[in-house]
Amino acid sequence: MQSAETNTKLNRGCLLLALRRYSAAVHNMEQTVLLPSLLRDVESDSDTDDDCFQDCHSAAESSRKDLYDYYLMLKAVRNTVESGLVTLDDRKAKNQTYLAQNKTLEPMLEADPEALFHFHLRGLFSVMGNLTKKSQGVTTKYMDIIRIMN
Amino acid sequence: MQSAETNTKLNRGCLLLALRRYSAAVHNMEQTVLLPSLLRDVESDSDTDDDCFQDCHSAAESSRKDLYDYYLMLKAVRNTVESGLVTLDDRKAKNQTYLAQNKTLEPMLEADPEALFHFHLRGLFSVMGNLTKKSQGVTTKYMDIIRIMN
Repeated sequence: MQSAETNTKLNRGCLLLALRRYSAAVHNMEQTVLLPSLLRDVESDSDTDDDCFQDCHSAAESSRKDLYDYYLMLKAVRNTVESGLVTLDDRKAKNQTYLAQNKTLEPMLEADPEALFHFHLRGLFSVMGNLTKKSQGVTTKYMDIIRIMN
Repeated sequence: MQSAETNTKLNRGCLLLALRRYSAAVHNMEQTVLLPSLLRDVESDSDTDDDCFQDCHSAAESSRKDLYDYYLMLKAVRNTVESGLVTLDDRKAKNQTYLAQNKTLEPMLEADPEALFHFHLRGLFSVMGNLTKKSQGVTTKYMDIIRIMN
């Protein structure tokens, strides 16, 4: 299976690069944040700076997170990245919105699986990039807090 | 970065397994289908057998494919899998439905990036499994055609 082997090598170079970057960012965050509780009640900069915030304000309102929540979420996602799909169904079941979105898309699978493949591949890269930035943001903010305390 | 290394190893074992299976299936299809033109005007079994077909009939109607179209599409997706995101934007731009879907989901990224991560990861596995079955189906159908001809 030379072709299959080649594909795997090439995938490792692009698809896993985003996941590897994310893992490295979370690892760095864990190494830096020695007292996670210091992140409690600290608002994420992205909640005020991001352009998209105005668009999704109502959605975000319902699940307003402080940096401690982000810290836990980023580690949880990293654990899923480690364990693959093992717990995916349970985790996915948490969020009805996305289950609904999935239901809307599933029938399209027959109609245009190629477009759906591009959609999910692109989406996965996009969300991994966003989570990597979040992880770096938590690390930076924690270092600022420590600097202010000393 | 031991943690990052571990994640990468584990990912290779789950996320790339679906892609590796797909690559192997397309490779096998290419090795078997020596005269792709024999697939022209042959209807895909999935168009009649799949339970979901009734739900997405109208959507599928607009882009009714014969097995030759599927053969080309499956190879095109394999090429994207090989080249990662290089051509993704161009390919994605082909399909307005999925661009629209993406626009709907993007604002949710801030609200619940964890759920969006699960949504796209699960979706990618789902579509890769579907495309792998399609590839195996084209191979089987081609062998039936050859058997009938001899």
